[in-house]
Amino acid sequence: MATHRLLLLPGDGIGPEVMEEVKRILAIIEARGILSLSIDEGLVGGCAYDAHGVAISDADVEKAQAADTVLLGAVGGPKWDSVAYEHRPEAGLLRLRKDLELFANLRPAICYPALADSSALKRELVDGLDLMIVRELTGGVYFGEPKEITDLPNGQKRAVDTQVYETYEIERIAKVAFELARVRSGRVTSADKRNVMKSGLLWNQVVTATHKQGYEDVKLDHMLADALGMQLVRAPKQFDVIVTDNLFGDILSDVASMLTGSLGMLPSASLGAEDENGRRKALYEPVHGSAPDIAGKGVANPLAMIASLAMALKYSLGKPEVADLLDRAISQTLADGIRTGDIHSEGTTKVGTTDMGKAVAERF
Amino acid sequence: MATHRLLLLPGDGIGPEVMEEVKRILAIIEARGILSLSIDEGLVGGCAYDAHGVAISDADVEKAQAADTVLLGAVGGPKWDSVAYEHRPEAGLLRLRKDLELFANLRPAICYPALADSSALKRELVDGLDLMIVRELTGGVYFGEPKEITDLPNGQKRAVDTQVYETYEIERIAKVAFELARVRSGRVTSADKRNVMKSGLLWNQVVTATHKQGYEDVKLDHMLADALGMQLVRAPKQFDVIVTDNLFGDILSDVASMLTGSLGMLPSASLGAEDENGRRKALYEPVHGSAPDIAGKGVANPLAMIASLAMALKYSLGKPEVADLLDRAISQTLADGIRTGDIHSEGTTKVGTTDMGKAVAERF
Ligand SMILES: CC(C)[C@H](C(=O)O)[C@@H](O)C(=O)O
Ligand SMILES: CC(C)[C@H](C(=O)O)[C@@H](O)C(=O)O
Repeated sequence: MATHRLLLLPGDGIGPEVMEEVKRILAIIEARGILSLSIDEGLVGGCAYDAHGVAISDADVEKAQAADTVLLGAVGGPKWDSVAYEHRPEAGLLRLRKDLELFANLRPAICYPALADSSALKRELVDGLDLMIVRELTGGVYFGEPKEITDLPNGQKRAVDTQVYETYEIERIAKVAFELARVRSGRVTSADKRNVMKSGLLWNQVVTATHKQGYEDVKLDHMLADALGMQLVRAPKQFDVIVTDNLFGDILSDVASMLTGSLGMLPSASLGAEDENGRRKALYEPVHGSAPDIAGKGVANPLAMIASLAMALKYSLGKPEVADLLDRAISQTLADGIRTGDIHSEGTTKVGTTDMGKAVAERF
Repeated sequence: MATHRLLLLPGDGIGPEVMEEVKRILAIIEARGILSLSIDEGLVGGCAYDAHGVAISDADVEKAQAADTVLLGAVGGPKWDSVAYEHRPEAGLLRLRKDLELFANLRPAICYPALADSSALKRELVDGLDLMIVRELTGGVYFGEPKEITDLPNGQKRAVDTQVYETYEIERIAKVAFELARVRSGRVTSADKRNVMKSGLLWNQVVTATHKQGYEDVKLDHMLADALGMQLVRAPKQFDVIVTDNLFGDILSDVASMLTGSLGMLPSASLGAEDENGRRKALYEPVHGSAPDIAGKGVANPLAMIASLAMALKYSLGKPEVADLLDRAISQTLADGIRTGDIHSEGTTKVGTTDMGKAVAERF
């Protein structure tokens, strides 16, 4: 049995706590002989800055490059609010995405039946919701140059960010979306602001052209990003796969995640290109942040982190059936009324991070 | 009595239909001697392109410059999908915003009690909702240069958009937000992506500094734009005034508008700076688009257009009490169960554009 190299980057805030529950599941996977794993750990975010003066050390980037799979907790917190821009905790995450060329960010928004009532939306609008946002992750305004603040002669300042997209960047993310749609409901909605942005215009043209290159079995629609934000709230079940750029994807996936009842529930995968052996670099992380307000209290919801491991089993570790088992263990835990504080409601049992992790482990 | 100069730009799609209902109200206002009006009309959007080959003629921009108040319907439609980028219908609207320096876009999201049940959100989350998004409208990625698509040597293309903000642009919009908050609940939430964008960093710093220049009676919070998108869906009533940049404002105000039950209901005001006489250029338009699918059928909802006139009465025409009367006439019409198709539900009376306009007029 080949050994898979896993790198765990717990990060800041609740990151280390929820990562502990992933380790619990990984131990079971090893004990059962499902996979042979070589597990290493590293630092990213504020904790890396405290240790090394940078948001991720070169050594840890190298470890990530060498790993088959990176699992990341969360980065950031008020402790590092006054750190210089290039060393802020997020810079570590952004460097990882960029250096590993993790251009395809998959953000599923599914509504667990047991939680449908805790959505802000009416039950009938979200019950059974299952959509996938495919966000471009290594281009756009996140990385374009110039990106700077300059002093003007009049004593004022001028800030510039640059959104850049080249044909190949749009083409490869469109392909990911079309291929995902094929194993789902076969529909892709592409979002842009082509009525205002030149990059939106190119986005629209390239997605349309890529669709004609052998993906015509997939149904493609285009929607303006603002209209899509609205439609996500009005009738989210109309969507299957949504493909959009880095910045729109950031906002729209957060809106989508909230539809499902709790952000604490949702995983994400960030994938690179396939190499000649059909393998791709990959990083998995919960959509939620580091939640500094509840960090260290043992109350954080570890389900998004565990669901991120399920995505890793599916997309990187060649064990989709084990991923399904793990996803079912999460659903069953919820169906059994076990809840952390963020999703607790009357008539359910409130537990902390560790007991939630144990509950999933027992059902796995 | 001084005569106010009004310019009506009905635009495309349902624009002309909903503008007819504004004319009905204006006729009443004149007949009652409330205001003396000199009303002119012009073309903007696709209709201007058809007539003049540009999305707005210089002559109509001059008329807008000279007017006290511009009322705009909506622009755009599939008919002009293949028009060159610089002549697309939206270019007319963007030119008006830029040439008149309408930097402050006010987008209220209020939930009419009679419509609370038609929101996608649970009633208790939106009942009584009353928030105001203050969107910067003449800067950011909408207007920054370079904005272009270039050919690369490898046959691919490269698209660039540039987000630019200078200190004064952020300062003046922050002031608008603080001043509005003072006559509301006294709270401002500023949204940016300072963890990723230099313009977000400057935004954050300038809003914070402006707050200290005599606005400390207002409570100021900062939120990342993605988190704010989430919170809008989770618990919109936590917000009073939200201030954000042009692009985030575009998306977040559409999300917010959908919370209220129908986009067809919401007006907006775009204001310029005050001159030495305390007067400012202003354009009022519904948040909804040109809805080409229902254009010409007499079924469009004119309430957002009529509510835009109410905003004009309040912010430009010096008649806040008449604005209140008009807003109350809209609420009463809804309370009486009169509905256009977009907001129709069982047990209410479905009417077309004209009858809806007449119903409001009768109650005004
Ligand atoms: C932490 C931050 C840099 C990041 C982003 O903006 O991409 C986060 O919001 C996300 O969505 O993963
Ligand atoms: C029509 C379009 C250019 C416009 C915008 O993006 O500003 C619209 O979406 C709006 O919100 O007023």
